[in-house]
Amino acid sequence: MTVPLSDTDRAYLEQAVRIADRGWGRVHPNPLVGCLLVKDGTVIAEGWHAEYGGPHAEAMALTLAGDRARGATAYVSLEPCRHEGRTPPCSRALRRAGVARVVYGAADPGGDSGGGGDELRAAGVEVVGPTFTERRARALNPAFHHRFRSDRPWVALKLATSIDGGIAARAGEQSWLTGPEARDEVHRLRASVDGVMVGARTARTDDPRLTVRVGAPPRVPPVRIVLDPRATTPLDGALLRTAREVPVWIFTGPEAPDAALAAIEAAGAVVHPVGSAGPHALDLDEVLRRCGERGISALLCEGGGRLGAALARADLVDRLALFVAPRVLGAEAVPAFPDWPAPVGAVAAPGPDSGWVPAAPPRALGVDSLLVFDRIREHD
Amino acid sequence: MTVPLSDTDRAYLEQAVRIADRGWGRVHPNPLVGCLLVKDGTVIAEGWHAEYGGPHAEAMALTLAGDRARGATAYVSLEPCRHEGRTPPCSRALRRAGVARVVYGAADPGGDSGGGGDELRAAGVEVVGPTFTERRARALNPAFHHRFRSDRPWVALKLATSIDGGIAARAGEQSWLTGPEARDEVHRLRASVDGVMVGARTARTDDPRLTVRVGAPPRVPPVRIVLDPRATTPLDGALLRTAREVPVWIFTGPEAPDAALAAIEAAGAVVHPVGSAGPHALDLDEVLRRCGERGISALLCEGGGRLGAALARADLVDRLALFVAPRVLGAEAVPAFPDWPAPVGAVAAPGPDSGWVPAAPPRALGVDSLLVFDRIREHD
Repeated sequence: MTVPLSDTDRAYLEQAVRIADRGWGRVHPNPLVGCLLVKDGTVIAEGWHAEYGGPHAEAMALTLAGDRARGATAYVSLEPCRHEGRTPPCSRALRRAGVARVVYGAADPGGDSGGGGDELRAAGVEVVGPTFTERRARALNPAFHHRFRSDRPWVALKLATSIDGGIAARAGEQSWLTGPEARDEVHRLRASVDGVMVGARTARTDDPRLTVRVGAPPRVPPVRIVLDPRATTPLDGALLRTAREVPVWIFTGPEAPDAALAAIEAAGAVVHPVGSAGPHALDLDEVLRRCGERGISALLCEGGGRLGAALARADLVDRLALFVAPRVLGAEAVPAFPDWPAPVGAVAAPGPDSGWVPAAPPRALGVDSLLVFDRIREHD
Repeated sequence: MTVPLSDTDRAYLEQAVRIADRGWGRVHPNPLVGCLLVKDGTVIAEGWHAEYGGPHAEAMALTLAGDRARGATAYVSLEPCRHEGRTPPCSRALRRAGVARVVYGAADPGGDSGGGGDELRAAGVEVVGPTFTERRARALNPAFHHRFRSDRPWVALKLATSIDGGIAARAGEQSWLTGPEARDEVHRLRASVDGVMVGARTARTDDPRLTVRVGAPPRVPPVRIVLDPRATTPLDGALLRTAREVPVWIFTGPEAPDAALAAIEAAGAVVHPVGSAGPHALDLDEVLRRCGERGISALLCEGGGRLGAALARADLVDRLALFVAPRVLGAEAVPAFPDWPAPVGAVAAPGPDSGWVPAAPPRALGVDSLLVFDRIREHD
């Protein structure tokens, strides 16, 4: 149930959403939140959740505004929290500061933290919200919302493809399909998660570092994870050479030789033996469960195509970040979506029945395009 | 050689570009042009080329502004014309109206019409332009620019694909991959061309009408063209049933039976026999040449995949309009890019070396995305 907004309210609220992004990479597993205090048609303070454990967006804005907050309208991208956590409840702070009106976007899905809107209403503050659909609320802070629904980490799959759905011109060849702007965005995505995952083939072929080397550094560098049934990740590769600088986890299967496991551990990586799900395939459910137990609540999978497809077949992909290069790779290309779950029967009707909906409008990144889709499941 | 602009100049010029779009479907084969007259920081008149044969954008704006044009700045998306055509030269009109400054975007590629900027400069008017790169100039009015380089029509290929590059779940099945917003945009694209083309298989399977049924009607309804080597377009299909209302041209090959040709002509369509380029394939060069001779300077090909690929292999596609649905069709899908020219060797470097560059940023159309690419050829 969402509330309609005036154009002015909407514009300020969208500005709060943009401000929220300033906490990117610093607040996870908390949500990104932005807050704008407006009085007499003027923005008197901007606040955002800037650092995990630090002040909430509302608190920052109220501190900056001081006494001027009295009678102001607060625009907050997420419902003000009600619970006493690391910081005092924002609903109380808004009330005490004399804020006259609160317009917020997403409902707080939290059991303890939620209900701030109602509390403010009960205290006589005019409250407008939630104004975002649940889909939009989830798209803005997907891992945060996911936590209230699932024990396994939220999983984003990143694929860089040609317009004909290829990821490399030929098997075993490293391809640079996308340009520098797309690669900067991948670094930005890495900064927002706890773990970056690739398959063993990608680790061998592309020899990626999987670190965040562009943009503001994340609060905690994401763990680099290889799904490597046979423990073939090269000891002299970029990952294991730097395993003592940024954590590397290697998930291995029963077929991995003991000597290889010992060598990987000697390099400074953590070995996670898990069950197998067929030849050269790990039990993905177990992998994700293990990740969740070890504190990973958001995971970025950077391929390859087979690992992405295995995750998709198990319906474990929550977001798909598709970097599309203006290029046709042709029939010999390595497919980005091999053996993905295909639609049942004919595609008779257009629309969102595919189970994927855009999380945001498509974006230009140099000559490439970024399409981001969220998985919508029937039981959602 | 482009000229840098101040932010203010740029904003007004972009506004002129948007205004130009109001002539969509009405001015072809002329270019879309918008003009803004600005004086003392205020827009005093908007003009656009609204109808083929009617006043140019500058003339419309000058008429609206009257005496107030004296001392104003004119922002024009295309270099003011210099030649006496259906209407008097815009360079002279701007000069006579006392416009003090002219900022324009695209250089006029025309031999006769071009040079308006220099003429204005020589007359003592301050002129800033061209300010658009040639690539942008061509992206805004692609068919217009194409005419100065080639006798064959400008060809846009429209494909609606899944994210894995399929156009239908299975061969012979009609698929509705994209939603209503995407289909409205296809109607808009049709309104901007002289001809809409499909292959015979698409005519049989999808039974399309290929008319403009959404949005403002085009000045001239595009001719509906089927490439049909064996003359198999169904007589009771949507195209031939309406051939007396909106023209239908059927290009046929030597293998077409005389009886079928006679029946098609009896239905009111025009038969164009052309040479063959292999089994069930027409000589595309001859098809396009014939179209050009008959006054078609812009053509929209709506598929299917085989016709698109044949055009691409012959390097006859100038623009690719890709409607991407948030859907995976899987391995049994009909590929959108079968046998397209693939890159030679490994893809070693990212970037625009694929020969395709975005004509505009990607756009959301409901849940679908529209990616538009222009072909960049080496000799360009």
